[in-house]
Amino acid sequence: MGAATRQDFERLDAADPLRGFRARFSLPQDLIYLDGNSLGALPAHTPARLAEVTTAEWGRGLVGSWNSAGWIEAPLRVGDKIGRLIGALPGETAVADSTSVNLYKLLAMSLALRPERRLILSEADNFPTDLYIAQGLLQQLGRGHQLRLLPAGAGAEEYEQALDREVAVLMLSHVNYRSGAMHPLRRLTARAHAAGALSLWDLAHSAGAVPLALADDGADFAVGCGYKFLNGGPGAPAFLYIAQRWQDQISSPLSGWFGHARQFAFEPDYAPAGGIARSLCGTPPILSLAALEAGVDLMSEAPMALVREKSIALSQGLIELAEQRLDGHGFSLASPRAAGQRGSQVCLRHAQSWPICRALAAHGVVGDFRAPDILRFGFAPLYNRYCDAWDAIERLRAIMESGEWREPRYAERVAVT
Amino acid sequence: MGAATRQDFERLDAADPLRGFRARFSLPQDLIYLDGNSLGALPAHTPARLAEVTTAEWGRGLVGSWNSAGWIEAPLRVGDKIGRLIGALPGETAVADSTSVNLYKLLAMSLALRPERRLILSEADNFPTDLYIAQGLLQQLGRGHQLRLLPAGAGAEEYEQALDREVAVLMLSHVNYRSGAMHPLRRLTARAHAAGALSLWDLAHSAGAVPLALADDGADFAVGCGYKFLNGGPGAPAFLYIAQRWQDQISSPLSGWFGHARQFAFEPDYAPAGGIARSLCGTPPILSLAALEAGVDLMSEAPMALVREKSIALSQGLIELAEQRLDGHGFSLASPRAAGQRGSQVCLRHAQSWPICRALAAHGVVGDFRAPDILRFGFAPLYNRYCDAWDAIERLRAIMESGEWREPRYAERVAVT
Repeated sequence: MGAATRQDFERLDAADPLRGFRARFSLPQDLIYLDGNSLGALPAHTPARLAEVTTAEWGRGLVGSWNSAGWIEAPLRVGDKIGRLIGALPGETAVADSTSVNLYKLLAMSLALRPERRLILSEADNFPTDLYIAQGLLQQLGRGHQLRLLPAGAGAEEYEQALDREVAVLMLSHVNYRSGAMHPLRRLTARAHAAGALSLWDLAHSAGAVPLALADDGADFAVGCGYKFLNGGPGAPAFLYIAQRWQDQISSPLSGWFGHARQFAFEPDYAPAGGIARSLCGTPPILSLAALEAGVDLMSEAPMALVREKSIALSQGLIELAEQRLDGHGFSLASPRAAGQRGSQVCLRHAQSWPICRALAAHGVVGDFRAPDILRFGFAPLYNRYCDAWDAIERLRAIMESGEWREPRYAERVAVT
Repeated sequence: MGAATRQDFERLDAADPLRGFRARFSLPQDLIYLDGNSLGALPAHTPARLAEVTTAEWGRGLVGSWNSAGWIEAPLRVGDKIGRLIGALPGETAVADSTSVNLYKLLAMSLALRPERRLILSEADNFPTDLYIAQGLLQQLGRGHQLRLLPAGAGAEEYEQALDREVAVLMLSHVNYRSGAMHPLRRLTARAHAAGALSLWDLAHSAGAVPLALADDGADFAVGCGYKFLNGGPGAPAFLYIAQRWQDQISSPLSGWFGHARQFAFEPDYAPAGGIARSLCGTPPILSLAALEAGVDLMSEAPMALVREKSIALSQGLIELAEQRLDGHGFSLASPRAAGQRGSQVCLRHAQSWPICRALAAHGVVGDFRAPDILRFGFAPLYNRYCDAWDAIERLRAIMESGEWREPRYAERVAVT
């Protein structure tokens, strides 16, 4: 890219085959929302769908809607819809609980499948709740398991070397929440298998953002998040994936009635359902699940290859603009520069990322801060425009040049998610 | 009660101090809905509240609503509102996950607090998912714990005798889902403590239905359901109660980021939050949680003493009508006859309860079937009318006298919840 202009980015928008999707979301007109990897935007049809579930299905259908409105099948129905986005076979994906709870289940199952091994191999910079869940499980089990963490940014070679005969399961986030770095899922899964270990992937920053082929790539287990690129709403139920070959060999430590073979026979003894259903536990939150389904339905209309192509173009555009136009302001690239090693986000590093992020938000650009020094821009190709990348960098440049980011009001700390 | 007439019940409705509440729900006008103990009715203000959360908070506020709209505090804020309904102190109740998942957490915590003991004492007729969860946990722990079940219907004396020095925790449903029988919570909790055991109560059929005083009664732990008498919507998030005295001594096996002391510092090591917050795990489903809060707010307007008084009057009325007007049709009372030993439901036993329940539904009376032979009528005093009891029994009588319930269309089995 030479010296770019806004017109260049406007032309890209005009030629974008996905440009029609932005109108399918209810987004404030002028907002440059680059935080869809924290909370995805509201699909325009979701409020009407929620109103229908609430007023008609719950209000008028009442308890009968568990059958007549398909609530009872929703965890597996929506699971299969997500499954198509992540390259799962039918019956390999279910919607359930939160990402953390699902990770707990699958990690426990993984250790039970490798009883003679004592290690969980993961990354020091994994999303914290993933590490917390592993720590809690290991403390509870009290059997001498250990969590071995490679340093942040360790590459495939280092994981390959660390995959020895002690490792029960390789537990990684496919795309790192902070840097956006993407692990080679197929390669590391194959290496885990060669070492006799299992693979458990957290797809929170992958599902709906990058092409996935879990079944083809041989993944054993995966979890993921409904409220980021799937646009399922705040705290949307999460999903889990269990490769068909394991489904009859595992039992969930969270053995609730939705995972029972004959849930409504009210038998006193637990008997696991066949297939993915045995990973379910309690009654699913139907309203949140309906919003998730609406988001997944919209995402399912977009060809993932086009999504990825635009994601890369947006990201490369932003990186190049940052290099050209933020020079001398103290930023460095915290994401891999090679598109193939990156998810759908670009992270800049700056010692003052917090007040800068807040000042940007005051100018209509919502990115995200990630401790200690990351300014994160997520790209959701269904609703982000090429001009968003241009405008974000221009406003960032203005804030840096004017020094506005130094104003005390931007220093205040508030919680973020 | 002598030979009653519908006018008697109409007079009771006219004098009912809670009669104004029915209009606060969106219920089909002619429906006699006696299944609020399976799925509570839709509060009239819930759709507007959900629309606001969806369109304004999510759609326009986007990720900033975690702070600006109070999403991040919702689990503890709504928890405390429920806490006031169950006699908890502030900070003893949180909304989280499902009832099953919460039971798993609290059962694991209970066993960890009594490491030298090996028994969970419960009831053979406990709600099945409670038993399934216990079975799954014990299998996972593999430390020789056992689940000891007293027979269905065992009384307080039998539990008192069974509470020996081997029992780590007494895990009971306060009100039985099938019979409606209510255990003496205060008495059994005291006896559990005298034996050195802990008490864990499932309040699914109690919260919002019967007065509770968990803190005064000394309960250690409790779980409960948001979608029954709290009218929180299908699969509403559940709640859990942890007595203040235990909060700093327990650690959750499901140690997710919402239970971390500094959630947004993104530290690599888990450090439990102080207080009830450490029982939280993953990101809560905000849309479902908002509907739950709307239901809890409505319930909080009703004096619980009046709710209980009406619940008893409705139940006694139905029992007496059944005895007077269903004689010779093969029904028997499956609930305790004494109001003080019963929750907010009346169960009749009949060998053909399934087709009878279906025929009743076809005539606008929604009760519930519970295997193998229970016809269950739940009373939600905020929206059930005295005439509902009269009309339910009259329509039941008509179905029995005409033999309509024998029609083949009523024999078909469908899943129920």
